[in-house]
Amino acid sequence: MLNIAIAGLGTVGAGVVRLLRQNADLIAARAGQQIMVRAVCARDKNKQRDCDVSGIKWVDDAPQLAGLPGIDAVVELIGGADGIARDLAVTALGNGKPLITANKALIAAQGVALAKLAEQNNVPLFFEAAVAGGIPVLKALREGLAANSISAVRGILNGTCNFILTRMREDRVDFATALHEAQQNGYAEADPAADIDGFDAANKLAILAALAFGVEPDFAFVRTEGIRRITPLDLAFADELGCRVKLLGIARMGDTGLEQSVGPALVPMTSPLSQVEGALNAVQLQTSHTGHIMLQGPGAGSDATASAVVADLIDLARGNRAPAFGVPVAQLTKVNPGPAHKSRYYVRLQVMDKPGVGADIMTILRDEGLSMETILQRAQSATESVPVVLTVYEADAEAMRRALDKIARLATVVEKPCLLRIED
Amino acid sequence: MLNIAIAGLGTVGAGVVRLLRQNADLIAARAGQQIMVRAVCARDKNKQRDCDVSGIKWVDDAPQLAGLPGIDAVVELIGGADGIARDLAVTALGNGKPLITANKALIAAQGVALAKLAEQNNVPLFFEAAVAGGIPVLKALREGLAANSISAVRGILNGTCNFILTRMREDRVDFATALHEAQQNGYAEADPAADIDGFDAANKLAILAALAFGVEPDFAFVRTEGIRRITPLDLAFADELGCRVKLLGIARMGDTGLEQSVGPALVPMTSPLSQVEGALNAVQLQTSHTGHIMLQGPGAGSDATASAVVADLIDLARGNRAPAFGVPVAQLTKVNPGPAHKSRYYVRLQVMDKPGVGADIMTILRDEGLSMETILQRAQSATESVPVVLTVYEADAEAMRRALDKIARLATVVEKPCLLRIED
Repeated sequence: MLNIAIAGLGTVGAGVVRLLRQNADLIAARAGQQIMVRAVCARDKNKQRDCDVSGIKWVDDAPQLAGLPGIDAVVELIGGADGIARDLAVTALGNGKPLITANKALIAAQGVALAKLAEQNNVPLFFEAAVAGGIPVLKALREGLAANSISAVRGILNGTCNFILTRMREDRVDFATALHEAQQNGYAEADPAADIDGFDAANKLAILAALAFGVEPDFAFVRTEGIRRITPLDLAFADELGCRVKLLGIARMGDTGLEQSVGPALVPMTSPLSQVEGALNAVQLQTSHTGHIMLQGPGAGSDATASAVVADLIDLARGNRAPAFGVPVAQLTKVNPGPAHKSRYYVRLQVMDKPGVGADIMTILRDEGLSMETILQRAQSATESVPVVLTVYEADAEAMRRALDKIARLATVVEKPCLLRIED
Repeated sequence: MLNIAIAGLGTVGAGVVRLLRQNADLIAARAGQQIMVRAVCARDKNKQRDCDVSGIKWVDDAPQLAGLPGIDAVVELIGGADGIARDLAVTALGNGKPLITANKALIAAQGVALAKLAEQNNVPLFFEAAVAGGIPVLKALREGLAANSISAVRGILNGTCNFILTRMREDRVDFATALHEAQQNGYAEADPAADIDGFDAANKLAILAALAFGVEPDFAFVRTEGIRRITPLDLAFADELGCRVKLLGIARMGDTGLEQSVGPALVPMTSPLSQVEGALNAVQLQTSHTGHIMLQGPGAGSDATASAVVADLIDLARGNRAPAFGVPVAQLTKVNPGPAHKSRYYVRLQVMDKPGVGADIMTILRDEGLSMETILQRAQSATESVPVVLTVYEADAEAMRRALDKIARLATVVEKPCLLRIED
């Protein structure tokens, strides 16, 4: 029997308690032993919850869970990169207790220190639920594709953003309306910043990159941009260009270093990532020997995230002792940050429709060695500004930025241009 | 150091030898030890191969590999459900040597006996490469989604058939031409029967079903149909109906038993499976707590299959001891075969375009309690037969079969009708 303690009884914690009960026989058969929740801890003992914890020992102070006699493993579902979550993790691993967590911020920030502690105490540290919810993508990288070197990871890692972008496209509503809808459907938090500004996806990307490239996860090197500036017009233009707009996390090993970025991008409809809609997540892995592997499924939600937590518990019960980041911590290297890879670009401008504006833009592009591929103009007006979209052939990110700065300063360009990668 | 012996140096065997050398450092770091090929065996020692085995001990008789001193694990890549492959597997496991195999026919036919032998000798038996090549789908079922009960598995499990169907649709070539092209591209064997008649996919489906539903794999209960009878006309009609034709393997747990079938089906373009084209494979898992999970990637090929074999070796080196079928053999149940699930249907008829033919068909459908959804007719002719396609609302498979038999006997129906499931 595997006796566990759970800290945090929010959406995920309650889901784990329920799942362990609902599928108890199946889980015991697969794990080779029963998995029993022996102690729990949450902020408010009297809160109404979606799970029954009667008969389970209640502890008020999370780190205490790690010291309880008879507890074989600790599950941390509190959240946050430090504070109680970190204290509990350190105490548990330091006490020689295996730690399972769904906490992406904790792993992205403290993953190396915790993995080192786990090694020193010879206990597993697993965190499948931290990335892409119920999709077993960390296991695929750490184990299923372990024979491959990875050249790139691309993912739709935030279901809230994908839901918002899908709704904006389908119903041509603006960002604020789609966000409100996401909040009403329970896909977005009351404070949605972590999702819509890309930080949630950036944490996940740093963890994926660590496993894919054998580097220490380092959130600070992820160039992060959210989706607030995307308009229904961008989605309509993208459609015209045969693309969908997705918030993509990209980690790519180049000749000069590792690129890590999160930001909105146009994805051609010929790419399977473009077909991943609504609150779904997907991760595409570019491998040395297995081509492109893609995994998709629900990236969040109580049950899906609980599924990943319990899978880690079953692994633990079966004796899986794979290193947290796929290799021993001493063999992880520091991130050597590389430049953004070359790509095609989408540029939306709001311009006064005057003679010469096109020529000015072309000249700027030419001076930076860039070539225009398409130009789309939706309206004509002698008096008001009109939207114009350009796409640019594969270009160096720096050259594109410089050109954009110059374009933005043209007198005929009346709004801040919107620049998006086209991610083939 | 993990010292291994490899039996079989065909496409996959040569790929494993190459991969272990190409990614040696990476693999050693992830496995926690070096993986070294110490002995090999193949039919013809003097054959020209895509790998260098100089300096590696050569054995003429495969089962001998299992008895060599200093060998920690045996990799079986000979193929075939019995004969030498089986002898080697039994000898290795009986000698207490872990066995890794890519042999779907062996596992589908002898999996239970081998898993029992593995348990008795307390050694792992892994076969990730047997299903969907490089896609780590068995690991996903056995481990990553182990907390879920599974209600259905649907997969594009044969890259040859998917390549042929894709080519037939894209270039409107007939089956024979597309098959020839597949053979020229190395996607189809000189004797393509195992692929195009569905038996290869049926073996894989039986293995998937065993892991998904905790049953003994039983190839005999897989209703199997190939793609020989699919015509370019079917692909054109499917397109008109917003669908793609795929050879689908389906395992679904119903109230009265487990359905297992392999056959061509129409997949609506709204389903992600419809987007899986060319030689790619994909598996969709319908889970209790994680919704629909889909994995896609290359399902065959030297490198991709070798990736799965080496992943199993890394698992072995790391000490992964998960049971071959996810639970101990004693807990596997026998397959209780269930009826085909209800679905919509596509029926293509070749009919003489005479008054009353429509009424005759409708009457037959009505008498079986079936409702027609769509009728498509491509041509009119007073003298020659014309193709007509019907789609039928969700129907019981038996009722549909009975109706089809009656329709086939109508004097105005001049060819054997083509019946395909529409798999929503």
